[in-house]
Amino acid sequence: MNTNANSNPIVYEENARDRGALLVKCPDRPGIVAAISKFLADRKANIVESNQHSSDPQGGTFFIRVEFECPQLNEKRAAMEAEFESLAESFSMDYRFTYRADRKRTAIFVSKETHCLLELLWEWQSGDLPTDIVMVISNHEEARGMVEALGIPFYYIPANKDIRKQVEEKQIALLKEKQIDVIILARYMQILTSDFVSEFPDKIINIHHSFLPAFIGARPYERAYARGVKLIGATSHYVTNDLDEGPIIEQDIERVNHRDHVADLKKIGRSIERRVLARAVKWHLEDRVIVHENKTIVFE
Amino acid sequence: MNTNANSNPIVYEENARDRGALLVKCPDRPGIVAAISKFLADRKANIVESNQHSSDPQGGTFFIRVEFECPQLNEKRAAMEAEFESLAESFSMDYRFTYRADRKRTAIFVSKETHCLLELLWEWQSGDLPTDIVMVISNHEEARGMVEALGIPFYYIPANKDIRKQVEEKQIALLKEKQIDVIILARYMQILTSDFVSEFPDKIINIHHSFLPAFIGARPYERAYARGVKLIGATSHYVTNDLDEGPIIEQDIERVNHRDHVADLKKIGRSIERRVLARAVKWHLEDRVIVHENKTIVFE
Amino acid sequence: MNTNANSNPIVYEENARDRGALLVKCPDRPGIVAAISKFLADRKANIVESNQHSSDPQGGTFFIRVEFECPQLNEKRAAMEAEFESLAESFSMDYRFTYRADRKRTAIFVSKETHCLLELLWEWQSGDLPTDIVMVISNHEEARGMVEALGIPFYYIPANKDIRKQVEEKQIALLKEKQIDVIILARYMQILTSDFVSEFPDKIINIHHSFLPAFIGARPYERAYARGVKLIGATSHYVTNDLDEGPIIEQDIERVNHRDHVADLKKIGRSIERRVLARAVKWHLEDRVIVHENKTIVFE
Amino acid sequence: MNTNANSNPIVYEENARDRGALLVKCPDRPGIVAAISKFLADRKANIVESNQHSSDPQGGTFFIRVEFECPQLNEKRAAMEAEFESLAESFSMDYRFTYRADRKRTAIFVSKETHCLLELLWEWQSGDLPTDIVMVISNHEEARGMVEALGIPFYYIPANKDIRKQVEEKQIALLKEKQIDVIILARYMQILTSDFVSEFPDKIINIHHSFLPAFIGARPYERAYARGVKLIGATSHYVTNDLDEGPIIEQDIERVNHRDHVADLKKIGRSIERRVLARAVKWHLEDRVIVHENKTIVFE
Repeated sequence: MNTNANSNPIVYEENARDRGALLVKCPDRPGIVAAISKFLADRKANIVESNQHSSDPQGGTFFIRVEFECPQLNEKRAAMEAEFESLAESFSMDYRFTYRADRKRTAIFVSKETHCLLELLWEWQSGDLPTDIVMVISNHEEARGMVEALGIPFYYIPANKDIRKQVEEKQIALLKEKQIDVIILARYMQILTSDFVSEFPDKIINIHHSFLPAFIGARPYERAYARGVKLIGATSHYVTNDLDEGPIIEQDIERVNHRDHVADLKKIGRSIERRVLARAVKWHLEDRVIVHENKTIVFE
Repeated sequence: MNTNANSNPIVYEENARDRGALLVKCPDRPGIVAAISKFLADRKANIVESNQHSSDPQGGTFFIRVEFECPQLNEKRAAMEAEFESLAESFSMDYRFTYRADRKRTAIFVSKETHCLLELLWEWQSGDLPTDIVMVISNHEEARGMVEALGIPFYYIPANKDIRKQVEEKQIALLKEKQIDVIILARYMQILTSDFVSEFPDKIINIHHSFLPAFIGARPYERAYARGVKLIGATSHYVTNDLDEGPIIEQDIERVNHRDHVADLKKIGRSIERRVLARAVKWHLEDRVIVHENKTIVFE
Repeated sequence: MNTNANSNPIVYEENARDRGALLVKCPDRPGIVAAISKFLADRKANIVESNQHSSDPQGGTFFIRVEFECPQLNEKRAAMEAEFESLAESFSMDYRFTYRADRKRTAIFVSKETHCLLELLWEWQSGDLPTDIVMVISNHEEARGMVEALGIPFYYIPANKDIRKQVEEKQIALLKEKQIDVIILARYMQILTSDFVSEFPDKIINIHHSFLPAFIGARPYERAYARGVKLIGATSHYVTNDLDEGPIIEQDIERVNHRDHVADLKKIGRSIERRVLARAVKWHLEDRVIVHENKTIVFE
Repeated sequence: MNTNANSNPIVYEENARDRGALLVKCPDRPGIVAAISKFLADRKANIVESNQHSSDPQGGTFFIRVEFECPQLNEKRAAMEAEFESLAESFSMDYRFTYRADRKRTAIFVSKETHCLLELLWEWQSGDLPTDIVMVISNHEEARGMVEALGIPFYYIPANKDIRKQVEEKQIALLKEKQIDVIILARYMQILTSDFVSEFPDKIINIHHSFLPAFIGARPYERAYARGVKLIGATSHYVTNDLDEGPIIEQDIERVNHRDHVADLKKIGRSIERRVLARAVKWHLEDRVIVHENKTIVFE
């Protein structure tokens, strides 16, 4: 049971205790679904949702996410995982079990602009983000008030490229001490080194304020304005060592026109950034995203 | 093999011969997916796509569509269907097998406005509608040219409410003689009687030029204009005996504003009607739609 | 100058003091634009934005909104308005001047669901709503915390249909005492009597949680679910004495599917309601909306 | 009067004879609108639509499009234009008068893929494109049938980079002989030389099958698939000497997901390309587009 002070009671429905999901990636071939569903049926686990994907029907990689409900799941899960191993081996599966009862522990990084942070806190308060927000880290003080008002610890860690190494060491220590599972860069305007990124593979989610791959890098709205585009967008992606090149989770856009100056684009962009990041984070927290090569399979 | 003169070669890929789908509706309970997937695996059928839905996780109705690929499917299918019966019975399944090789035979009904017909013919020509368009029936001559240019038989059957009975008898005779599976009302401006409708349950697809349930019935654009709505829409649905009340398959909308007069709404509406009907027809032809009570489950 | 404690400094740019707008409605005929633009040019007012609309090119009603910048506007405005009268008379104009320096005084009504209120407060804090939020009135206590945290007075006025008369008298007294210009019903779940409505013509903005005219009245999401629609929407409109029949300012929708139960529709709906109401309120506060008969002309 | 065989009678309303538009670009300063509207009013021209834009309220470039209706316009226009010159000079205006009665003469270039051509022909037939389609030029034979069926001359001009110079000379001669005003590249897969482009400044409209500036150049769908984007788009722009860098007129997108392979992206993309090009062409034909530096002002 989750006793974290800033956990979110609304999301924590009773039956969640018996909910789990199995995510699998393996070479495609007949019999996978049969084997998995038999395994679950034999353990009285009822499949409540199932999504699958073949990278290529004529023998490619097969992906499946099965969400199930199983009485006394907490008591059974250890045995279940142990028993699954031989099956997984026979299909050379890369897999993981996840459980609704294990709420992910999240840290949000933010700088001066707080709109994405606010959206996440709002969704979290309304019970739409199944996670414990364990901390907010910022290189500015702007967000302290709204964060502490919700009983969430706020860590002010000044940062700039000259002290990057020390700053990241401090951050990593904090994240590990608090056993953080997910790091959300909610408009955190500092570049992370590959040392930092490699500590948390596929666990750092960023929001980039453009429709990638257009306007990679700095000042995307200024460049969108200069180019005279008729739509602007935002992109949420996993952070890798290639700036803005990580696997894309979600994107969205809105129309703009010649009347919109850079300030208007930024304002319109803020609302796109808010919803794109919120969607991506939700899917990640619900274990609906599988990263494969440099892409994502999102089982919405 | 399909030898119809106006069949569409592009869609007819070789492997289609070995493609099939199983659609099932039954009371929800553990083991359904396991049973179905085992059944297919035992017959060397590889599941290439699978979608399911539970009307209510705590025991409601369960729906699943499994698309599979199976060598020599044509030779095996009769046996497969026979063998499935006992399994179906044990789960009290309402089910059907469909085969890509059996192209549905379609009749399109149209009146004066040809934009929806044109869209369907265009999609069909580009190989995006897996069907044989066996005939076009119209109560006007406008469409004859474009239809016959494609080698599709065109039947001009004048109609009005006074002669409705005779007209429908003639139409039904024609549809039965040509073994029509799907009837598309592509802006056919005559009301069909319950006698006609009950001949083709869940087989008649209509496009209504409003966002149902708003503006049910006649002159929706005029009424949308009078109300001053900021969005107009179109709805594609199966035809039942309740006018515009049948199960909705697809809907879409576009923004309008105070500058748009009725003529503008109609013009904007035409493009919405085109894409909404085309999508609904495609999903129906690919057996992705299950009708349940007065709703549809669409496994896109 | 505005000295209200809870005014929003960000919006209050210096040049706003010299910004004004003229809104006109009159019988269409040649020379209107010439007369208005000459009038402004003669007073050194530079037209920065101009929008017009003819209900019908062959002589209908003509609408125009002209936004201008004029040095020392505050000193000149009284004289300007006086001098405009004769011109207005000669074209039988129904018109009004509005000034950016005069920030509208807003009251927000809310019940238990706070998402629309939160969105408005968020937009207001980011400087996107040019208004003074003078009070929040609620028949529940849920919103008190977030409102008072921003230094906005919160009035808890319990309400139900039995005491409606007394409740509205209390509300009206309060609204008049504080000289409220705009009343926003941000999911206020009480019906207002015609006595209340007629006190504030074209000044009460409501958000209805459906795509009007579909699902007028109560429980729209439940009814949308029952009908099996593939899109749900929200509508912001001025409140008149006909429930949900007032002039529509803005509408928007989002896609839903068979997987979405009523709770999902409500959740998706919340995000539509938030942005639809925020847009409508913004346009109203910027005097971009003209009500004509039962429709709106919105000069975005 | 237009007597062209393949002109479009539907569009040709009687009153069009009296419709004109004035497009102006000049340094911003007070009095421009007053001067223009007085000029028109003095000539009994009724302003039916007016749109303006200031690149920067504090003195930048001012743009205005005024559409007017004036009895006996055909008889008056020469004098009107002559009389406007002094006014234009006093404001250093860059301007042009256009008349609905002068239908632009259009040439469409196409290669193998005909979906964009079909869309334009369809819009043109329904009376939504006010132009005379004088010819279709193609380096393939695919489109001949549908083009000649509409009585539009089809010119088959084989092309490849080795014979580019001769091919373009032939094309230019043809375009000049037929006094072409607008050239539409409806998926014409040959690169045009700067010699060709400079013959028709701001008169060549292209559709690029990506959301520019993402995926400039060849094979955009393949690259979009490789990057794993969640939206794909299309862009219509004027052709300049910088490949895919010309002023953007219109863009749109659609959602895609991990299930969509390159072939699916192309199919979805076709429908985006169709509507984006059709909109851009319509706005250009109605003289709603002003090119300024490398951007467009579109007065929808």
